[in-house]
Amino acid sequence: VVDRPRPATLEQLPTPAAVIDLARVQRNTAHMAARARRLGVRLRPHVKTHKCVAVARLQVADHFGGITVSTLAEAEHFAAAGFDDIIFAVPIAPGRVPRAVALAARIGRLTLLVDDDVAIDALEAAATHGAISVCLKVDCGYHRAGVDPTSEAALGLARRLHAAPNLVFAGILAHAGHSYDCVGADAIRAVAEEERAVTVGFAERLRAAGVPVGEVSVGSTPTSMLADDLTGVTEIRPGNYALFDVFQASIGSCTADDIALSVVTEIMGAYPDRGSLLVDAGALALSKDPGPRHVRVDGGFGLVCDLAGTPLPGFTLVGLCQEHGKIRLSPGTPLHGLRVGDRLRIMPNHSCLVTALHARLYVAEGRRIVDEWRPVRGW
Amino acid sequence: VVDRPRPATLEQLPTPAAVIDLARVQRNTAHMAARARRLGVRLRPHVKTHKCVAVARLQVADHFGGITVSTLAEAEHFAAAGFDDIIFAVPIAPGRVPRAVALAARIGRLTLLVDDDVAIDALEAAATHGAISVCLKVDCGYHRAGVDPTSEAALGLARRLHAAPNLVFAGILAHAGHSYDCVGADAIRAVAEEERAVTVGFAERLRAAGVPVGEVSVGSTPTSMLADDLTGVTEIRPGNYALFDVFQASIGSCTADDIALSVVTEIMGAYPDRGSLLVDAGALALSKDPGPRHVRVDGGFGLVCDLAGTPLPGFTLVGLCQEHGKIRLSPGTPLHGLRVGDRLRIMPNHSCLVTALHARLYVAEGRRIVDEWRPVRGW
Repeated sequence: VVDRPRPATLEQLPTPAAVIDLARVQRNTAHMAARARRLGVRLRPHVKTHKCVAVARLQVADHFGGITVSTLAEAEHFAAAGFDDIIFAVPIAPGRVPRAVALAARIGRLTLLVDDDVAIDALEAAATHGAISVCLKVDCGYHRAGVDPTSEAALGLARRLHAAPNLVFAGILAHAGHSYDCVGADAIRAVAEEERAVTVGFAERLRAAGVPVGEVSVGSTPTSMLADDLTGVTEIRPGNYALFDVFQASIGSCTADDIALSVVTEIMGAYPDRGSLLVDAGALALSKDPGPRHVRVDGGFGLVCDLAGTPLPGFTLVGLCQEHGKIRLSPGTPLHGLRVGDRLRIMPNHSCLVTALHARLYVAEGRRIVDEWRPVRGW
Repeated sequence: VVDRPRPATLEQLPTPAAVIDLARVQRNTAHMAARARRLGVRLRPHVKTHKCVAVARLQVADHFGGITVSTLAEAEHFAAAGFDDIIFAVPIAPGRVPRAVALAARIGRLTLLVDDDVAIDALEAAATHGAISVCLKVDCGYHRAGVDPTSEAALGLARRLHAAPNLVFAGILAHAGHSYDCVGADAIRAVAEEERAVTVGFAERLRAAGVPVGEVSVGSTPTSMLADDLTGVTEIRPGNYALFDVFQASIGSCTADDIALSVVTEIMGAYPDRGSLLVDAGALALSKDPGPRHVRVDGGFGLVCDLAGTPLPGFTLVGLCQEHGKIRLSPGTPLHGLRVGDRLRIMPNHSCLVTALHARLYVAEGRRIVDEWRPVRGW
């Protein structure tokens, strides 16, 4: 990244550029913080969506300061910025244990996630110099990771963690990723209740078996936005809500007006005879995330807006090559005078994948650029 | 990126890790260089697939040294490494003109691409201090960018470029991206002949109209691998062939044994009851490129292999989250003793999108890591 003077406005950004709307991210983070307080749970926000210290600070305001990360690179980066209660919420791969243990020794608490004996073997072998905080991952219906909470094996792993002399069994953790398959608030609320009930039920089962359970941690953005009751839950870990995206708006976690991330792009080709425009935001600026195809099969690779952020009806981002975005105009769609050199703004399908593609995120108040934030990258 | 001692073997890599098989990239680049010589055309390889100087040097060996880039960041990076004949093969966005013109003044030849009057206006306005080399982009059937070669407008743009005092009309350029929609060598050969015939035909039309045409530049990896005849063409610009990927192997540009890029990943979850494994290569390690869905709708997000690179039948990478890859095992598929902590190797669907996600590409001879290359990132 070559350092250049910071552009002053959206019109001056080098394109493609990832832009965060400051007012929206402030509103989104304040809303979730208030929700968590109202529901009586601690908020341990996920930072993987933005990977920026500045956004994480907004997320933890008025809460205890704990965060959730998806990589050790994030854990190390946020630890260096002063965050000292971190959950690495992906099952720990044994190859990562030495680095994780080294970090755990440097901060207040780093909690690792397990759902397998081999990983626990690796942690026990590495934990000879001090205690390691560990959560047991529970499958609450998503079927990506985690133990079956009704199984004997799950009970066995919890007992092992509880008994291990150099491990601290911090509690249990679930993630209702299947909330992303929903359409509408009622469907999401049902998954939120499933996430809560399965996880709290597993905690009760463990306690009845003599295994104390501290944290009962749940949370995806859709379920955290819509849950009505979190009885028995101690903390939630939403992340995407800080920025939101077209996916979240499509399933009903938010509205399009809440989306705080966009990519500013320049028109580099105009083909009215073919009904298409070419913009300089391709797969390396927007990711190839197909978005909520269960809601709208032909929704394209993001929501095409004018530079002010107003959606342009009839404009669909139908294809992404490496550095090209192809916009198709529905028949009869007015071009609004747009031509090569004009700028558009794309609200992305999946914010978490977009921020990770950009060395810097420009921070905007209206059209004015007021700051830039640098996401930590890699692993 | 934290600097750490270089790992010695595939087993020691921090995962997920992008790995280039040196023998394969040497073979792939030598093969294309020989093909171009045999076909009587210059090879101006695209470097966007890897963005690494070391690979570009292999690509241009025994040719004239010209390269093709997809971003100005690539152009500046390769220029700094001594490449001095570069085509920026994406229609120039007017906002990029000042930076492009500044680079053009520093190297032997930077050629820009246009297909629109507005872009030419911007170039003419910027070209007061010296000549700018420009190619006219032609649509040879892909319909992404470029002028319709049968149109009056195309002739008008070529005449304008030829007549512009501060522009050097270098020639015409086409890209048969629709070769990626093919299945099998015969279909690709037909697109290659279309690419050639349309582009050469347009050159002849321009010459007949009194507009001299220098370069007649074509090329995608599929068409460059399979074209039998390139009469009238002066140069080809394939890029993906240096590494290849599952997409190219699926449509018939290469075989799976030619794929030189893979991602080494560690198993972090094993769920035999659910018939699935979880690996630590997710969407940020492999991209969400769906691969050749027109060939195989359920092919998954890459080809799952053991660490030696041998495909594992019955293993399908069915889903990618940000940092998780979910492998589904077909019923009855043996686990081969694999468990948490073991390593697999994923051949990616689309190499160009994968290399751009990694700060470094590890270079392997067999299982030994002998070097690491750093792709240039951003724009």
